[in-house]
Amino acid sequence: MKYRKIPDETVRRLPIYLRVLLFSREQGKENISSRDIAVFLGVNSAQIRKDFSYFGDFGTPGVGYNIEKLTKQIKKILKLDVTHRVALVGVGNLGSAILAYPGFKIYGFDIAAAFDNNPKKIRKKINNIAIESISRIPTLKKRGINLAIVAVPEEAAQQTAEALVKAGIKGILNFSPCYIAVPKRVKVITIDIAMDLARLPYYMPAG
Amino acid sequence: MKYRKIPDETVRRLPIYLRVLLFSREQGKENISSRDIAVFLGVNSAQIRKDFSYFGDFGTPGVGYNIEKLTKQIKKILKLDVTHRVALVGVGNLGSAILAYPGFKIYGFDIAAAFDNNPKKIRKKINNIAIESISRIPTLKKRGINLAIVAVPEEAAQQTAEALVKAGIKGILNFSPCYIAVPKRVKVITIDIAMDLARLPYYMPAG
Repeated sequence: MKYRKIPDETVRRLPIYLRVLLFSREQGKENISSRDIAVFLGVNSAQIRKDFSYFGDFGTPGVGYNIEKLTKQIKKILKLDVTHRVALVGVGNLGSAILAYPGFKIYGFDIAAAFDNNPKKIRKKINNIAIESISRIPTLKKRGINLAIVAVPEEAAQQTAEALVKAGIKGILNFSPCYIAVPKRVKVITIDIAMDLARLPYYMPAG
Repeated sequence: MKYRKIPDETVRRLPIYLRVLLFSREQGKENISSRDIAVFLGVNSAQIRKDFSYFGDFGTPGVGYNIEKLTKQIKKILKLDVTHRVALVGVGNLGSAILAYPGFKIYGFDIAAAFDNNPKKIRKKINNIAIESISRIPTLKKRGINLAIVAVPEEAAQQTAEALVKAGIKGILNFSPCYIAVPKRVKVITIDIAMDLARLPYYMPAG
């Protein structure tokens, strides 16, 4: 409860810090300075110290932050200190790429179910996940899965979201190129890959 | 030149605002308040006003911002006031999804070339783009393409980036799950879809 006031922008950066911390620990480091993190990420270190100040200060001047403590704390705040099972809906090109993506595990995510409406795909396996019919989405509730990734075509996105909400899903990562409407209690994060590309020209030298 | 001091975090948000503005104009609106934008995006309106203040203030109290003026200004700052031709390297599942993605056009991007190392894919067309051998990456310079999207497996990412830099590419959107090293003059934005998922549990109700 006491963490509720962390700004969204800080929450957005926490997974980025977490990845740097996990990477540094793998390298055998025990401490890391805000300056090191800043250099690694290309951001400014005052921002990093400010972000960390929202949930307590583990830094020692001249030594830096204790990586293990800070990792634990960030995981706890992000509720990543437990494994989350995740469902994927839509196993087209993008969905298949998501199923094969190796990067979910480090944050404690386990893609545990995949659904598609194409009968030809049902029971096929990608990365050891057997694809199920979307008619089985309602089983998510009793399987204890409350996070979902939506990678269906735009025209199917809203009805997919509604089926997921009915099945008890509380958070949706939406890759369909449209907004989806859900009850307030459900959090949706919509990814628009074109938006990331839209930042690039700004940084390019003229001419 | 005078825009150089806009913070990265503001630059990151500008495409988000731009999309809201384009959407609102489509709806026939002429003006929009920071409050409307805030509600639409679920962020706070003080942040939006602060972001806009970096490049001049087009707002009128009680009326809001002139959508057309603000759209032009943001496009100019982001250097999106011209069409950018973009190359894609790696036409696997993710690359195919990117080629089919309809969302690039609204920011003025034109995916104009696609490369893969699989001989079976060469000359096949996706969305009217004929796939070329990666041996043709050096032709990008004379084709005037200086932005690229990398969607190759992790082990091929670094060498792909190096080939692109040699071919005059100045900005890379990297979907490979690893950091890539490039000269300082080249801007790389690395996308980690797991990182976006990592923000979701924070917002989910307990229990």
